Amino acid sequence: MLKSKQNKETLNQIGEREILNRLKTFMDDGQIDDDTSIINTNRKNLIINTDVFVEKVHFSEETTFPENIGWKAIAANVSDLISSGSENIIGITIGLITPPDTEWSWVNDVYIGMQKALEKFGGKLLGGDCSQGKQKVLAITAVGSLGPLRLHRSNAQAGDLLVTSGPHGLSRLGLALLQSEEIPNKNELTENLKKQSINAHQTPSPPIDALKHLINCKPAKIPWRAAGTDSSDGFLDSLANISSSSNCSVIIDPNQMPKAKDWPKGQTWDKWCLNGGEDFEMIVSLPPSWAQEWIKLVPSAQIIGKITKGPPKLLWKNGEEIRIKNYSNFTHF
Amino acid sequence: MLKSKQNKETLNQIGEREILNRLKTFMDDGQIDDDTSIINTNRKNLIINTDVFVEKVHFSEETTFPENIGWKAIAANVSDLISSGSENIIGITIGLITPPDTEWSWVNDVYIGMQKALEKFGGKLLGGDCSQGKQKVLAITAVGSLGPLRLHRSNAQAGDLLVTSGPHGLSRLGLALLQSEEIPNKNELTENLKKQSINAHQTPSPPIDALKHLINCKPAKIPWRAAGTDSSDGFLDSLANISSSSNCSVIIDPNQMPKAKDWPKGQTWDKWCLNGGEDFEMIVSLPPSWAQEWIKLVPSAQIIGKITKGPPKLLWKNGEEIRIKNYSNFTHF
Repeated sequence: MLKSKQNKETLNQIGEREILNRLKTFMDDGQIDDDTSIINTNRKNLIINTDVFVEKVHFSEETTFPENIGWKAIAANVSDLISSGSENIIGITIGLITPPDTEWSWVNDVYIGMQKALEKFGGKLLGGDCSQGKQKVLAITAVGSLGPLRLHRSNAQAGDLLVTSGPHGLSRLGLALLQSEEIPNKNELTENLKKQSINAHQTPSPPIDALKHLINCKPAKIPWRAAGTDSSDGFLDSLANISSSSNCSVIIDPNQMPKAKDWPKGQTWDKWCLNGGEDFEMIVSLPPSWAQEWIKLVPSAQIIGKITKGPPKLLWKNGEEIRIKNYSNFTHF
Repeated sequence: MLKSKQNKETLNQIGEREILNRLKTFMDDGQIDDDTSIINTNRKNLIINTDVFVEKVHFSEETTFPENIGWKAIAANVSDLISSGSENIIGITIGLITPPDTEWSWVNDVYIGMQKALEKFGGKLLGGDCSQGKQKVLAITAVGSLGPLRLHRSNAQAGDLLVTSGPHGLSRLGLALLQSEEIPNKNELTENLKKQSINAHQTPSPPIDALKHLINCKPAKIPWRAAGTDSSDGFLDSLANISSSSNCSVIIDPNQMPKAKDWPKGQTWDKWCLNGGEDFEMIVSLPPSWAQEWIKLVPSAQIIGKITKGPPKLLWKNGEEIRIKNYSNFTHF
């Protein structure tokens, strides 16, 4: 257990009113006096997203500090907003459920992690609710404003290139290192790759600058049409979602897998790259001329395949179908 | 158990993707293809609220049909928006957590209840997320637009009258009837009061028209300043919140308790009225001239006391302090 040892006070000792009072210190103004919070709007459309994070389903206290649980919950929601076209995060609300014998320090550390993430990505804590329950749950709703580009999973078209904002598999490797799993070729791993992987697992940073570049580099003659999603549930999974929502085939070049620098070779490594999960990179389907401009501006971005007419399927370049089930896969049911 | 007997299919048999597909039918457009939803804004400020509803803490399947669980979750959030000044509900997102052996029909019925409530109160289902977990949880975030009156708990001032939009205790009586509890004076209960109470417990209706009247009847010379909250956690509890947030004393006239027509006399009945909980009425603190206009327009509204200078306390008219703990009280920790 990585849990902080200080402050052993438990929530049932503190009581609901005092818990809310303490949480108030994490907020900019007195929203906890009221049940609601204001969102200032200035004619822009807003974009909203809700994600739930359940103990033992989405996070484990064995491998994740409470502060990192808070950070990751924010990062996952911000990732959804970014990959929908929101470059300006307004704020989040949180529904927090914890067993009554949870220590206050756990809640405090989760909120510190959320606060740090919001400092990095923008946006503020707007409010929320808390209750006791059998297991820990964070339900996060994030609100951002939408710029000129609304990315939908269903917007891909034959002829598009598929581009990702960065490498995949790092978070899965970070988890393996933190859990002291058996790792093939472990001795070959560079210090830099290990550090990068643990960071990717503990404090992932969704690619907000990559979205800004994507918006700024659109060739003038092309309309604001691109498909996008994030790869939070795995690289192949996000491609499968674009393929089915857009009703088209996706072709991936095995020589263009989105691997990090110094990523080892081998079956486990390919699996972790293709569907390790929690990578929080953008996967975008867009016209070739736009794609070429984007990868010039985002050093970590990479073309990984293309869209063709055909049934919703993932195919290797040689025409062989990719079976996602052959790769490790996330499911929440 | 009141649970529906049809469709015994469980969620782990159905799988995550198919669950999301089925939930899509409850939405106006294809937001489930994406992780986010658009909120159209037109220069107004928005107001946002998150509430969590946890099985065995906030609801029990023994006394509540799944459809009513969905309705009540929406009503509770709408109540928070109304009592903050939002007369226009834009929509909600839902984070749904259920054990894997939950029957699909349960989820379906909860969504039908939410849909019916949204048809009544306005707003649409914007999106959400689902996951497995040890117990059922609904985490609802509601968004509304704000009119000219922002009600804060902290806005009460000495000289204000306290007014509620309607009677209290009905939901608690409804629960007692549904649970076949021992009820004193049970034979005296009118059929109308029983029916009204069961409705108040199963399908509560937050007073959206009362808010509209409150906004429309403000005397022109008075500024847009009033304190407000809803009585979802009990009548006395909401008064205590106004008292502490506004740092003033609250004086209640025992002859002006907000009782329903034909409400019986006796200690249990006073307790249920004063802190039965889940009443979802507005409690507003406002200047006397405004209060007088409001009660003319809202037949169920009633003056219940006043605000005076003094420490945050609830007092009877004779100066005796009201101890909330002497009345049944909600707590979620």
